[in-house]
Order: sequence, then structure tokens, then C-alpha cells
Amino acid sequence: MNHEFKLINQYFKHDYQHPATQLGNGDDASVHAIPDGYELVVSSDASVMGSHWPEDFPLKQASDRAVCAALSDLAAMGAEATWVWSTVFLQQPEQAKPIAAGIHAACQRHHIEIAGGDTVKAPYPALNLTVAGLIPSQKVMQRSTAKVGDDLWLYGELGHAALGLQHWQQGITSSVFIDAFSKITPHLKQGKQLRELGIRCCIDISDGLLQDANHIAQASNVQLQIHTEKLNIILLRQDLADEEEALQLALSGGEDYGLLFCACPTLRETLKQISFQQIGTCVEGSNVQVLQHGQEKRAINQGYDHFSTMA
Amino acid sequence: MNHEFKLINQYFKHDYQHPATQLGNGDDASVHAIPDGYELVVSSDASVMGSHWPEDFPLKQASDRAVCAALSDLAAMGAEATWVWSTVFLQQPEQAKPIAAGIHAACQRHHIEIAGGDTVKAPYPALNLTVAGLIPSQKVMQRSTAKVGDDLWLYGELGHAALGLQHWQQGITSSVFIDAFSKITPHLKQGKQLRELGIRCCIDISDGLLQDANHIAQASNVQLQIHTEKLNIILLRQDLADEEEALQLALSGGEDYGLLFCACPTLRETLKQISFQQIGTCVEGSNVQVLQHGQEKRAINQGYDHFSTMA
Repeated sequence: MNHEFKLINQYFKHDYQHPATQLGNGDDASVHAIPDGYELVVSSDASVMGSHWPEDFPLKQASDRAVCAALSDLAAMGAEATWVWSTVFLQQPEQAKPIAAGIHAACQRHHIEIAGGDTVKAPYPALNLTVAGLIPSQKVMQRSTAKVGDDLWLYGELGHAALGLQHWQQGITSSVFIDAFSKITPHLKQGKQLRELGIRCCIDISDGLLQDANHIAQASNVQLQIHTEKLNIILLRQDLADEEEALQLALSGGEDYGLLFCACPTLRETLKQISFQQIGTCVEGSNVQVLQHGQEKRAINQGYDHFSTMA
Repeated sequence: MNHEFKLINQYFKHDYQHPATQLGNGDDASVHAIPDGYELVVSSDASVMGSHWPEDFPLKQASDRAVCAALSDLAAMGAEATWVWSTVFLQQPEQAKPIAAGIHAACQRHHIEIAGGDTVKAPYPALNLTVAGLIPSQKVMQRSTAKVGDDLWLYGELGHAALGLQHWQQGITSSVFIDAFSKITPHLKQGKQLRELGIRCCIDISDGLLQDANHIAQASNVQLQIHTEKLNIILLRQDLADEEEALQLALSGGEDYGLLFCACPTLRETLKQISFQQIGTCVEGSNVQVLQHGQEKRAINQGYDHFSTMA
């Protein structure tokens, strides 16, 4: 048996199998029988050391984050998460153990089957997570279904993970923000709840509120108006002297993995009761407008861009 | 719009959509309705420059190869290939165009929908391809279903790709072997044909005949006896002075992507007529035995090992 298989057998075995799986990890491919009345939802998401986590960040936490970031896409669709196919790019075989531990921890927390994947040698550690889930037919939430007159809602914190990354880079070892960066919570329960309430338009915030809001605006052909007074920046303000800096982080900081969604105003009371925050409205247009005390606010960073330093 | 999205929109758009797709590329995830009577087959496969293709190899061909290598896993299951989620790790934005061109070319040749993926910056070019396909329920071919008394069969050439890689590294620019390395043919048609003939045990040969045969032997708890006289090494012998070297390449050379399968002897005439080659038999045991003129042959390389130089 060669080393690649030894690594896989040692660390990547995982006993849980979803009832719909006919053939799990260990063959050329896995096989799944999708139950009647359900559709399959699939997303694929990469994480690279240096781009997605700092070089001195623990590999176990980095791979746990990577799985949860991928699962967040399924939450945004309203799906039940069921399977992951994890590809691990290793610089050294010793990296297999902590990376596998992080993948397992995340999958166990969210009751996900590791249905397959690949383990390859590479000059840098990286991961690719393909995640899949099930959803009742025709009920998926998407980006293109916001309507003029809808309210704009948020679930989750803004800017906390971005500030956590700054703290980490400054050598701070413990803060509520470092926790927010270190451990991603994919809001699968809330995604399902929204879908069951009949919400049809949702996205997860991975690249910053403004950038992800813009995806809804363009896909749905609406203008999203965001009111800065409605954004919860209390904790950011406690840490940052400058209110403007706190607001910028809330609007553009990446890696928050909250849910941003649009809902008919008839749902306003129901949504408030389950602690979603209304942060704006949908009007005619096809872009995002930030309003501060009723005035348009300009000169805002647009969010994280992997290639911005390279083009 | 940031650069990552520009790259994706410029190069990774692809118009073909499979009829079972409810929501294609462009949202947080893709959504698919699996037709009644079918199961879903999924595999995920990575390729890294330096490990899976030489640094001076054209990126377009490298990414075309990567897609086809992944599709080969679906061929081995007997599935119809339908979707790919492609993650591209780019060192420079300029690499997006040739890599996307190779992915498109492979997907168009095999009528595959690009259902999603990710594009990220990395210190080294690499790809991850998650591929999925459909198969009539309960008909999948797997590694664990060989039986004592079965014949062992092969479809495809042995050692050609490995010799092609050697030629490339020696600076030879054109040979039938370089062609075999440069362009992978996933044997989807043959996989389907075998499944329709009732074959239940098949694997694709990605890491060398012996290593992949060993996967069947262990999963099925049979001994596979391979007769060297039955291996077609005519072309290898024309290029290589040494018969032993040719045989070693045929037994252990990687990246061939042929199909290795086990079949009941009652199918012998049918399989011969459609130009499959019988190369051995299944007997009691749980390993692979190579027989040369009836004598056991020892001291054979066991196939490609990504981590062999690192452990």
C-alpha cells in the first residue's frame, strides 16, 4: 500500500453514512439515491494558506473553517447539508493529521458524511470542499428572486471575522473577534427556517456585505438600500476608536458568513420575533445604495478581492 | 465587480445545461433534480503542477487532462457523466484563460455541464474537479464485487502515458506516447457498455495496473492473476530496447486511464468481439500475482506514489 493510501486510511476514515448513500468513500466514486420529492444542491469552495488563512494559523482550525465556509453556501440555499468530498493539498504528510482532524470536527458538528475526495502533494497546503445537500423540490432560495417592495434582512454579525483576522495579525491571542474568525458557523438551521417561511431570495455573506448585496441587486434587478443606523456595530465600536472604521468593516469585511435575504413586508413581525435584523429595503434599480441618516454614503471599500493585488 | 468575478465571467461561462439542472452556475450552489430510477455518482480529483503535469506543459492541456482524469472515475462506475464543479488555483490571472479553455474543451467533447466551482489565488497552479453523473439505480460497477472464477479484462493501453511523460521530460516533442500522456480519453462509452452487459466489478487504472488491480483484490477478497504474455506491449517494445523495461511500464506506469474489470466466463466471447483483452483470472486469495510463462514474477514496482519521496 503506498503512502497516499496510508494517509487516507489513517486519517480520512469517517463512519457516518447518510441513509441516501448507496456506496460511500473508498471506491472510484460515491453513489447516492436522492429521495423522491427532493433536489440535490451542490457547491464547491477552495481555501488556500496565505489567501484564506494566515501562515501561522493552526491547520486544524483552518480546515474546520474551510468545511464550514463551504456549508454556508448550502445554508444560503435553504438546503439540508448531507455530503462533503474533501480534497487536501499537502506540503508534507505530517499535515494530514491536523487537516483531517479539522474536517472531521466540522463534519461531526454538522452531521455530514465524508463521501470521498483526494489527497495530493502540493507546494503549499490548501483544501477544496465540494458540499452537497438535499432540499424539497422547487423550494430553493436564490439570488435572483428579490422584488421591489421587499425588506432586506440580515442574520449574523458584520465585520467581526475581519477584525479577528486583524487581531491575529497583530499578535493578539484571544478576543471575541478572533473567535469569530477562527470558527465559522454556517447558518444551516436559519437557512432552513427561512425557506420554510417561504423566503425565496437569500445569499451568504462571504466577501463583505456590500459585495454580496450587489450580487442580489444585479441578479434580481433591484436596488438594495442599506441603512447604516440599522447595522449592529456596537461591539466593533467598543474595540475601534473610529466609528467610520467600524462601519467600513461592517460593510466590507469578509468571512462573516451571515445570511442576507429579502422578504415580503407581511413577514416583518414574524422575522423580528426570531431575531433577524431588518437593515434596508428593495427599490427600483440594480445596485446597492448605502444611506446614512437618509443621505447617500459614498467612498466605501467594495469587499475582499483575491486578485486585486495582482491585476 | 472585482477581479475574481471578472475572471469567472470572462472565461468560465459555459452555455450547455443538462435537462436535470434546475439552477446552474452563478448562485451560491447549483440545484439538480435527479430523474426517477437513477442514482447520483460523484467523484473529486485534484491535479497539481509538478505532481500531475510537468512545469513546462501547456496549461490548456493540463486542465483538459485534469477534467478527463476525473471523468474516468465515472466511466469506471458505468455512469453517464453530466456535471463538473471546477476549482482553479491560479498563480497569476493570466493563467485563467488557458486553464478555462482546457476545461471547456474537455467538457464540450464529453457533453458535460460546468455547474459551478471556485477561482482562487495560490502560489502554484492546480485544479480540483468534482464530477457527477447519473446511473440507473442499483447498476453501479464497484471494486468489491469480483468473484473467484471470474476472468480479468482490460480496455485501453498500458504504459503509454508513462512513456509519454518520459519522452516529454527528455525533450522529445512528438510521439504516439506523448499524445497518450497529453490527452486522456475517459472510457465513458465502454463503461456504459460493460454496465449494460451486466458487469459489476470495474476500476479505472490511474496509478498503474498492479496498484489498481490490488484495490480490486483487497476490496473483493480475491487473488488476481495477471499473465504477462497477454499484455499488449508491442508499441512499448518498438520504442524500448529492453523487454523487461517495457513490461515494468505496462505493469506499473501511471496515468493510463484504461478500465480493468472482472466478468463471468460466460461473457468471454461477447467481450472478445468488442475488443476487450482478457489478461488474467480471479482465484482464491486477496492479492495480485503476476505470472510470466506460468511462473510467479517478483520484484515489480508497485505504481505511482505521490508521497514516496517525502515520507
